[in-house]
Amino acid sequence: MSTRNTRVLAPVVPSWGRLRPLGIDQVRIDGGFWGERQRLNASAIIPHALRWEERVGWIDNFAHVRAGDIAGHHGGRQFADSDVYKLIEAMAWEVGRTGDVALDEQIERLGRLLAAAQCDDGYLNTQFGNPGQAPRYSDFAWGHELYCFGHLIQAGVARLRTGRGGSVAEVALRAADHVCREFADGARPDVCGHPEIEVALAELSRVTGEPRYLDQANRFLARRGHGLLPDGEFGRGYFLDDVPFVDSPVLHGHAVRALYLCAGAVDIAVERGDAQLLDAARGQYDAALAARTYLTGGMGAHHQDEAFGADFELPPDRAYCETCAGVASVMVAWRLLLATGQPRYADVIERTLFNLVAACPSAGGDGFFYTNTLHRRTPAAASAPDEVAPRADALLRAPWFEVSCCPTNVARTFASLATFIATGSDAGIQVHQYAPATIVTPKARLRMQTAYPDDGLVRISVDEAPGPFALDLRIPQWAGGATVDGQSVPVGTLRTRVQAGDVVELVFPMIPRVIVPDDRIDAVRGAVAVERGPLVLCLESVDLPEGVEVNDVAVAAPPGARMDGDTVTMPGLIRRTCPTAWPYGVGPAGRATQPCDLVMRPYHAWGNRGPATMRVWLPVG
Amino acid sequence: MSTRNTRVLAPVVPSWGRLRPLGIDQVRIDGGFWGERQRLNASAIIPHALRWEERVGWIDNFAHVRAGDIAGHHGGRQFADSDVYKLIEAMAWEVGRTGDVALDEQIERLGRLLAAAQCDDGYLNTQFGNPGQAPRYSDFAWGHELYCFGHLIQAGVARLRTGRGGSVAEVALRAADHVCREFADGARPDVCGHPEIEVALAELSRVTGEPRYLDQANRFLARRGHGLLPDGEFGRGYFLDDVPFVDSPVLHGHAVRALYLCAGAVDIAVERGDAQLLDAARGQYDAALAARTYLTGGMGAHHQDEAFGADFELPPDRAYCETCAGVASVMVAWRLLLATGQPRYADVIERTLFNLVAACPSAGGDGFFYTNTLHRRTPAAASAPDEVAPRADALLRAPWFEVSCCPTNVARTFASLATFIATGSDAGIQVHQYAPATIVTPKARLRMQTAYPDDGLVRISVDEAPGPFALDLRIPQWAGGATVDGQSVPVGTLRTRVQAGDVVELVFPMIPRVIVPDDRIDAVRGAVAVERGPLVLCLESVDLPEGVEVNDVAVAAPPGARMDGDTVTMPGLIRRTCPTAWPYGVGPAGRATQPCDLVMRPYHAWGNRGPATMRVWLPVG
Repeated sequence: MSTRNTRVLAPVVPSWGRLRPLGIDQVRIDGGFWGERQRLNASAIIPHALRWEERVGWIDNFAHVRAGDIAGHHGGRQFADSDVYKLIEAMAWEVGRTGDVALDEQIERLGRLLAAAQCDDGYLNTQFGNPGQAPRYSDFAWGHELYCFGHLIQAGVARLRTGRGGSVAEVALRAADHVCREFADGARPDVCGHPEIEVALAELSRVTGEPRYLDQANRFLARRGHGLLPDGEFGRGYFLDDVPFVDSPVLHGHAVRALYLCAGAVDIAVERGDAQLLDAARGQYDAALAARTYLTGGMGAHHQDEAFGADFELPPDRAYCETCAGVASVMVAWRLLLATGQPRYADVIERTLFNLVAACPSAGGDGFFYTNTLHRRTPAAASAPDEVAPRADALLRAPWFEVSCCPTNVARTFASLATFIATGSDAGIQVHQYAPATIVTPKARLRMQTAYPDDGLVRISVDEAPGPFALDLRIPQWAGGATVDGQSVPVGTLRTRVQAGDVVELVFPMIPRVIVPDDRIDAVRGAVAVERGPLVLCLESVDLPEGVEVNDVAVAAPPGARMDGDTVTMPGLIRRTCPTAWPYGVGPAGRATQPCDLVMRPYHAWGNRGPATMRVWLPVG
Repeated sequence: MSTRNTRVLAPVVPSWGRLRPLGIDQVRIDGGFWGERQRLNASAIIPHALRWEERVGWIDNFAHVRAGDIAGHHGGRQFADSDVYKLIEAMAWEVGRTGDVALDEQIERLGRLLAAAQCDDGYLNTQFGNPGQAPRYSDFAWGHELYCFGHLIQAGVARLRTGRGGSVAEVALRAADHVCREFADGARPDVCGHPEIEVALAELSRVTGEPRYLDQANRFLARRGHGLLPDGEFGRGYFLDDVPFVDSPVLHGHAVRALYLCAGAVDIAVERGDAQLLDAARGQYDAALAARTYLTGGMGAHHQDEAFGADFELPPDRAYCETCAGVASVMVAWRLLLATGQPRYADVIERTLFNLVAACPSAGGDGFFYTNTLHRRTPAAASAPDEVAPRADALLRAPWFEVSCCPTNVARTFASLATFIATGSDAGIQVHQYAPATIVTPKARLRMQTAYPDDGLVRISVDEAPGPFALDLRIPQWAGGATVDGQSVPVGTLRTRVQAGDVVELVFPMIPRVIVPDDRIDAVRGAVAVERGPLVLCLESVDLPEGVEVNDVAVAAPPGARMDGDTVTMPGLIRRTCPTAWPYGVGPAGRATQPCDLVMRPYHAWGNRGPATMRVWLPVG
């Protein structure tokens, strides 16, 4: 089934696909886990990011461009502009969600700043092309100019979709037209070192109905993979410029770059009806899920180049798992879900949102993880609340980074989160994520009530409906099945027929599950993890006796987990290994063991109780 | 026992210590494993390095400085000068070893080039301080000026010790005097981002008898650790500038930097009789051996910052194990052996030379490993014989690197290798390494005959001796003991009393040994390795059936290894795991297994038979 979509208040609105997205005006999250994140986003994260972008000069950069004195006054790195754009996008969805007038005025203020800095021909960048700076387009590998345009355009799309247009949309459209002229066939033949323009132009084409934006997105995609970018320190694979997209069997290279490009490829494939391209994107993503993805949904095993490793190279202690790669993975999975209707992509979205994206911000919304390790061997210091963190992973959550892509990426995701809950089709409504929510479509008005993920009971009431319709419910892979209205149902999509007044009750099994890794993942051989519902749990040293670190304990064999009131515990052992001069050659050194209960808590909440060691995978025996 | 040493043809000649080094004129390697490396070094590695340093302009840099047009003509990075110096050092020891007149003339030619480029005040650098370049000492973090001086001074020491002096020694002495003036107390208060000057000045003090060089070395050591260098991307720990040397419990930060500094600290401690400093250096190194060293002796677990990781963070697939860190570890162990007489440091030297340093050069001496992984997941391409490799680890051994520190470090080590074989003391002679060799000291003329490490029989004949003396023999830890003249002897040092005409026969057990890792090393839990004699073995895919990679096999349980003629094999299994969409959640997926014998060959020889996957640690079961 393919369905042409009309205007929807959502970041991704394909012209065709198995499922139609619902707008953030059609789905409202009514509290619960994600409602709390949306509240935190509005009250803390967005104001925090705005304050920091003012403080570190990234917003002032635009005023300096306007004033002609940016050289010598530029704050931040080559991609600083993009973080202003991502923040505007987050604010735009927030305004779309709540109608916040003051926030809308903030956006307009920023938009006027951008407009004043934009060149007559649509070019806009605070790092290149202004007096005293390197010329425009003089460094495609690292300059990030088209990447910045991509985020500007996504901010513009958010304003257009939420019916506000205004200066941000105008600036974005002028920039997009500039890009189409400048990088047309026969003009500049280049691609950007960091994909992002592709996904942005494709969406702009959807919102404006202008095919030339889609054509330009496709042009960039087709050009890449032929060695236009330099073979530098990390190789061309880092830029995804080593092989054409359709020829790569699996996601590789820099994780965020690879995932943004893949998201753009899905959009281009859907809009052009290019089944081969869609298969290529889906195949790459599926292959990455099968062998290059952490239990948390995190992607990217290398610190050195922020890149995917080889198949099954998934070290928990050196997991990079950049927050932005998690956001980007959700972007790809969402597009594939809309295109194919396959519930496994909703499974991935759930896993990644709960266990990676939600882990990024601190409980107070004023600190952020850039990397999301699965094993912290030594306690990290708490970051100073008013210092920019120079490195991605030396500290617990930090208020801001020199490269601060992650906070605003989380902010725009949280602000538009409602779009992931449900979709529509000619047949009915599909519920993908479980949360307290109200869903209003022409087919029905639904109310979902649940304390998920703390509890497995979900009650969906059909409050209004002009007639009977199909209500599709995702039964997640992790659950192994569920009970719906008292009947056992298998993993996958459960179709029920409902009408006004009906109530559907789902019950998911919420007993903790011991998870065993594929034995090809060398780095966690002989270890187990624990999940409960959609949540990955972890052990944090603050829950261990004084002086015991997470590396001093093991899970008692055979591994088991149980609920102890509200808490998950595993029978474990504290091991005291005798010091040895050389750690090879013999079996386990003589060691004392002492039984202890290991308290396992949600991974997303770790690091909120001071410096600690932490691990997700625990050795057995 | 402390003994004052007289003039010795060796790189390290402490004034005091438990053992006295012998010169390369006193110990001659007569073929065998190391004799072959010395032959390769003279005939291939040194000429290869000289050719490449000419080709990439690192030698021409000095001529351009002289001509005044170096700006715009500089080839290489900030440390290119140091590789010229290390090559000169290698050539100097080679001349000392063989008396090669042509090579001696080459050194003089290079020395004249350096002399012509040196400033009147002794400063010499091709990257800084010349017209059109950044000023002298404007970038202590990354400029490497003092690091380059260190290697220049070590080349000068090699010339002085081998009795040749000449222009290289003169240039080195002028440079050392410049450093002492420029960095005296009350003058520049700085330290170099890369230690090396410390170990060099300490040795220059020994060879010249001038205490001011030692004082300056100590000054640099004492200054470091107080935050003189910037807190950059990798933190101050990278530079060892986070805590004073004496306060660090274990080697940390950039591995080569940490080890060079530690070697310098041992020298300074020994010369100054500073027991606290010696204990600190020894404690750091011992702690690194216990928890931060790979089975091969390799050090450095991080690619990102070429650094040590945390205790027991030793991933085999992302092992960095830079060749230079192996050379530097041998430097430290050798100094500690001379100072303490403890045979465990000779054990480390043996392990590291056979399994790391020897692995670097290709069989033909024209390609080099920069990093020395213990697990190659995907076959690396063979490098083009005439291209500079842009990255450290994308290829099999490469002919040259943009950062090409490793080939010349191996060359200088091979040229002076004989010094590690044996030492002297008032009581007699100590044999540390087993190789066909002739050892001539005032105590005796010894002949050592052996096919070690292929065979475990070593025969030592006392051909001449004025009287009886103590002959100490190292019984390596790996052997678990040995048979000497038919008697079982334990690990450690065996003291025998011998006189002219005596023959001592040692037999080491050469059956292959299955090695189990300490269970705190998460990354190799459930896996075993195999050693035979001092050699670590590995499995290479070229020894597996067509289409089978090393990640497709396991060792049959319980693991065992046997000699099959000359070859070590382990009973193993080829595993064909069914594809899965998500690699977590269940036990081992249904898989077919098929018995196969796994051929295990010396790790040092891997990668000489074309692109291959390889692993040292094999999963069991």
